[in-house]
Formats: sequence, C-alpha cells, structure tokens
Amino acid sequence: MNTREDCVAADRSDPLASLKERFELPAGVLYMDGNSLGVMPKTAAARAAGVINHEWGVNLIRSWNTAGWFEMPVRLGDKLGALLGAREGELVVTDTTSLNIFKALAAALRIQQTEHPQRRVILSERDNFPTDLYMIQGMIDLLQQGYEMRLIDKDLPLEKALDDSVAVMLLSHVNYRSGQMHDMRAVTAQAHERGVLTIWDLAHAAGAVPIDLNGANADFAVGCTYKYLNGGPGSPAFIWVAPRHIKNFWQPLSGWWGHTRPFDMTVAYEPAGGIRRYLCGTQPIVSLAMVECGLDVAHAADMTEVRKKSLALGDLFISLVEERCEGHPLTLVTPRNHADRGSHVSFCHPNGYEVMQALVARGLIGDYREPEVLRFGLTPLYFGYADVWDAVDILKDVLDNRTWDKPEFKERAAVT
Amino acid sequence: MNTREDCVAADRSDPLASLKERFELPAGVLYMDGNSLGVMPKTAAARAAGVINHEWGVNLIRSWNTAGWFEMPVRLGDKLGALLGAREGELVVTDTTSLNIFKALAAALRIQQTEHPQRRVILSERDNFPTDLYMIQGMIDLLQQGYEMRLIDKDLPLEKALDDSVAVMLLSHVNYRSGQMHDMRAVTAQAHERGVLTIWDLAHAAGAVPIDLNGANADFAVGCTYKYLNGGPGSPAFIWVAPRHIKNFWQPLSGWWGHTRPFDMTVAYEPAGGIRRYLCGTQPIVSLAMVECGLDVAHAADMTEVRKKSLALGDLFISLVEERCEGHPLTLVTPRNHADRGSHVSFCHPNGYEVMQALVARGLIGDYREPEVLRFGLTPLYFGYADVWDAVDILKDVLDNRTWDKPEFKERAAVT
Repeated sequence: MNTREDCVAADRSDPLASLKERFELPAGVLYMDGNSLGVMPKTAAARAAGVINHEWGVNLIRSWNTAGWFEMPVRLGDKLGALLGAREGELVVTDTTSLNIFKALAAALRIQQTEHPQRRVILSERDNFPTDLYMIQGMIDLLQQGYEMRLIDKDLPLEKALDDSVAVMLLSHVNYRSGQMHDMRAVTAQAHERGVLTIWDLAHAAGAVPIDLNGANADFAVGCTYKYLNGGPGSPAFIWVAPRHIKNFWQPLSGWWGHTRPFDMTVAYEPAGGIRRYLCGTQPIVSLAMVECGLDVAHAADMTEVRKKSLALGDLFISLVEERCEGHPLTLVTPRNHADRGSHVSFCHPNGYEVMQALVARGLIGDYREPEVLRFGLTPLYFGYADVWDAVDILKDVLDNRTWDKPEFKERAAVT
Repeated sequence: MNTREDCVAADRSDPLASLKERFELPAGVLYMDGNSLGVMPKTAAARAAGVINHEWGVNLIRSWNTAGWFEMPVRLGDKLGALLGAREGELVVTDTTSLNIFKALAAALRIQQTEHPQRRVILSERDNFPTDLYMIQGMIDLLQQGYEMRLIDKDLPLEKALDDSVAVMLLSHVNYRSGQMHDMRAVTAQAHERGVLTIWDLAHAAGAVPIDLNGANADFAVGCTYKYLNGGPGSPAFIWVAPRHIKNFWQPLSGWWGHTRPFDMTVAYEPAGGIRRYLCGTQPIVSLAMVECGLDVAHAADMTEVRKKSLALGDLFISLVEERCEGHPLTLVTPRNHADRGSHVSFCHPNGYEVMQALVARGLIGDYREPEVLRFGLTPLYFGYADVWDAVDILKDVLDNRTWDKPEFKERAAVT
C-alpha cells in the first residue's frame, strides 16, 4: 500500500470493517492505545444503566438470583474461555490480573511441593510487565521458604534459565513493551520437559492473537479484559486453570465465593469442585456486567481474520514509519517476524516521552513506556488501514517539525 | 409508640428524614436488607454514565490523569476515612473485604514475627462472617509455619481465648448474623494488654454505627462499601492501617498500584510510602466511582443522629414484634442492650427460610441466614418509624395466617 487510496481500498474490502460500528469512537481521535484500554462497545452504557437502575435500584438484593449476579463470573468465564481454547468450567472472570497471578503461583508452587519439592526458583523475564514480577516478590517474601526469582534477559536466555531448579515459570504471552510474542505451545513443552509448570499472562494477548490454552497444554493462565477485550476501565480480570490441576489445591485467597456451599455459612472452608474455587470476594457487579459487551463483539469476529488484519496493520505501520520518517532516530523494538509479534508495535525514540505527548495533542493516542518506547496498539476490530496512514502522517509531521520540543510536553503526568 | 400515627409523627420530627429523598426506593417495597446491599443514591446512575460515556468513551486512556482515576482509591479513602475516625492518607478504597483481610493479616503476622515470634494463634469467633475465617484458613495453609486458628464461642469466651499464644485477633465489629457489637476501644485495649494485634472487620458497621479507629487505638480495619454505605453491588472494599504500622511491612499482594513509582517500570518492588502500598492491581473504575455517591449522602448525615435513630428503630421493631407476634416461635437473637447492638435485628424462627420468602413475596425484604435466622436491617438514612410499623404488620400477617407454609417458599435459591 503506497498511497492513502490503497489504504482506503483495503478498508473497503476488510471483512472486519463492519465491527467498527459496534464501538463508540471519539471524533478527531486516532486511537492506538487499545492495548492499554480498549474502546467502548455501544451496548456498554445501556448494559450498565440496566444493572444500576433496574437490577440494583429496583430489584436490589434479589438480583443475586434473578439477574444472575451469582453466576456471572462463571458464565462470563465460559464465554471468554471459548475465545481462548478453554472448555466450559475452566475459566472465571474475577478480581485483577495481579491477584490471579498470586492464586496461580500459589497453586503451582504447591503442586511442585509434591512433584519437585527441592525446586526453589520462580522464573520470569526481566522485561515482563512489572506487576508480574512484583507479585512474585510478594509471594517469595510472604512464604519465607527460600524461593528466589530468576529473570530471563539478554545474558540469560530461556534455554539456559530453564534448568532443574525451576519450579514455576511466569511469562507474558505478548510482551507489554516490545510486543514480542512467545510460541505458547513450544515454550510450554520446553518447560514441561524440565518438569516446570507454566503460568501465562495473557493481558496483552487475549482478544488480540489466537490462543488455544488446552491445545498448548498450558497449566495456568491469567489476563485482563479491559485491553483488547474492551471490557471497560479496570474491568475484572480472568484466570484459567488446566483441568488436570484444578482439583489439586485450594488457592489461598479462599473467600466466600470460592466455597462449595457459601450459604451454608460453615466454619471450615471447603473449596468448590471446579474453577469456582478461584473466586474469592464479592465482585464489582456493574464493572463485571459490562465485560459481556466487549465479549459479544469479540465473538462476532473471526479470530483468523483478526490476526491476519493485525499483522497486515503492523506490517503497514512499520514500513510506512521506516519509509516516511527516515532520518529520525526511531528504532523498531517489535519483532518483524509474524510468529514473534503480538498486536502492538513499538519504536524507541530518545525523546519518546515528549514525542508521545505531542502525538496525543494532535489526536493520535498511543502511549509511552520507560525507557524511550513509543507504543502503538493495532486493534483490528476498530482500527483500519487508512487510520494507519493518517497516524504516520501525524508522526512524520511531529518529527519533521520537532513540535514535540516544547516545555509543556516534558511535564510528566501522574500516569504515563 | 403504640400506634401507626405515633410512628408517622416520629417520622415527621426525624432530623434525618430529608435524606430519604436522596435515594431511589422501589415502590411497594419495605427494604430491610440495607445491611446486605444498600439502596441506590439518586446520583449513582448519572455518575456511572459520566464515567462510561465521557471518561471512558470519549477521553479513554487520558482519564487516568484527567478524570483522576489514578488518585481515586486514595481520594475516596480519605472521604470514607473521615467517617471512621481515620486521618488523611490512612485508608484506601480497593479490592474486596476478603482480600483486604489477607493483606492486613499478612502484615499483622509479620509485625508479630519481630514482636512475639513464638506466637502461632490467629484468634477469631466461631460465628464470625465465614469469609473472614476462610481467609485465615487460606493464609495458614499457604504459610505452613505452624499457625492455627482459634475460635471464640460460648465455651471459650474472649477473656479465656486471649492468651499469650495469640498473635492476631480478627473480629467483626458488628456480627453479620446476630447484630451483636463489640466495644472496639475496650476489646482493642484488652488485646493490646496481651500483645495481640487487632484486625476489625467493619462490613456490618461502617456507615451504621459510630466508629473512631484512631480513638480506639485499632491496628487494622477492613470493610465493605455496598452495605450501609450504599456504594452499589460489589463496590470495592476498604482497608485502614494505623500509622504506626503502615511502614512496617509491605503487604504481599504487591501489585503495580502499590509501587512507589509505578510508571518507572522497575524490576524491584518498592512499596509506596503510606497506605498506597495496600493497593494491588487495577480497580474497576465504574464500580469504584459510584462509591462516592453513597459517601456523599453519608457525609450529609450526622452520625450521632444516625445512631440515635438506628437504636430507636431497633427498640421499636423488637417491642412491636414481641407484642404483636406473641405466641409465634420467634426468639430475639440480637442484644437488647444499646451498647452491644449494631444496626440490624435478627430473630430465630424454626421455619425461618420459608418465613423470609413469604415476607419477600409481600414486599418486605429482609434476608435469611443459617441457621433459622431472619435478619432485618435498620437503615436510618432511608427507613422510618412507620416503615417499621408496616413491616411488623406484614410479619404478623404472614405468621398468623401461616402464609409461609407453601411449597414455593421451601425451594432454595442459589443465593439466600
């Protein structure tokens, strides 16, 4: 695609084009941050209003039964699970990604206490999303059982890091910064060969790339619903546990909702039989209910087409930036190879923070991640080829005219 | 008050009467379940719509800064804390009560590892709300450090149970079933004399009874916002930590939001200086934002008047039930003594489940708790003296005519 007209033509023949109408997209904005917070499905506001005015306002406490609040984490879990290669009863929508990491990690370590009781290493990646590393550190400090965190980095590749001292490995399927993607099936097999259990963080992958949890023989997976799944700001996260592990352990965040008979009000915790035991406390019903609106759109899309378009958008964006912004100090961080790439593309720029602020001021919303990284999300459900063209126009203009070089763009906001 | 007219007169001179207009109350319902799920403030739907349509729909990711999403757990925490005798920076609104118990328990046990390293007992009450006991069990099982749970009951009163082996005591300020209330200051002092740290669960107390956390010299407190604080179904919970303890330990659910500089994306977790370290993962923004609507009404009420009216409603309800329903097998479970009573009143009835279903069918919504307990919440912000009169009318009719004795009222719903 060498002209904007080519891009418009590509949009016209895009089999996913009609899905864009199912979202509210603000005027004058090119939104390339769906990898951080997805856009609003048109049905979301009405769904929330129904929950608030009718289920809460009128039916009040009765809605636990009549509106299905009690079943919602499991029902939505089944609906989401179908997109990720999970079967019914294997996944729940609940809590936050961080908390679900804690549950999965506790369960995986406990399984290994029987399988490989000497192992004390929890393996992750130095450039994994920080909360993943922070939750590992919290667990290690809490347990005081001699666990240590080992981090894969350029000096310690996966093959070397994965030895017989590793109990559990926690990786992001798609890296939040670089967009680099692991081959879940191959890496899981590599881990299993060494007797290592895997936890996959799907935060930057769910809804963006094809995932087959059972097909990959994964052990545990967690992720969020407010990025590519468009569930709304801070909408509850999810956890999936392979059926072979579900009954092995009751995860330690054992609140009332995970009890097998919560309304018997017994003193002793008895975990529910299946994935319900990964529930803990009362969920934020309004935020939880809206998750379904995003899932409905995701179900209307063919994931093969989503992946095809995502890669095509990425190829286009990379080639246009490299061609049209030549001479500017931009370095591609994201792998070019399709098999190694998720659905966002990142470039380094020495003035990355200011450049991103200048782009946002021009209506091109991506985001910035330390150090120096400009991130651009490519969300096939609502972003098109002409959008990519227009985005590169703005980027080129901001760089050519150094419009980023202003004091106001240097001021750091609380959230970057 | 011997007649309905007396009750109507009492409503007329009620200094809190005008607050009722600030809530949506469904027609034809006498709502005595505000101790389980509070009613909807009239501002809630508009607040949610603003967050959804404008903050999410239009401003998208920018709202983390421009709409104050990032500051919300702390800002609402300060607003709520002011109602509970907390100072600024001591309380955050976040996660669930169960999870906040886990954080507080981990922190308290860690402090005791230095102060009283031999102690291995976590003390609670047999009839505490089950999730409190379940979280203790989850922690004990996770730690594998020889901790045990000891339960206060009729055979083991507090004075006997509280010995030098106890590390931490987790009590509900107001019991979920009986409505029995502890003297927080006296019991905390009793615990401190023995070197025991206290965690107070305020789920059935916050917004219902006067609380002064600093005045009571409490150590930790948690609670929920969807009962007497009318925050909405499953709205996020809260945690308070006494300033003397805040910096002693970074609680183990150490997600990104509790980091001192979350956007530096460092590998090492460094806890934020104050109560922010009790934050973990991304919060459900829509459900969280609505918490403020309930807090606004609570701030408009004088807690002395709320308490006065709550006790008066309770006295009236107890006396009318005992007088007018005489001869029916109802036994008061709740203490008559004002100092020992929260803001709900419970009676046992051998057919409690069916009786409650029959009451609900007649528009009197309370709830049922195993075993045999009918619970009736008294919420001074929106429930009045004539409402109490009318409620007893319905109860008397259902009992006199045995309308509860029908097969349809025996069927157990998923949530009771």
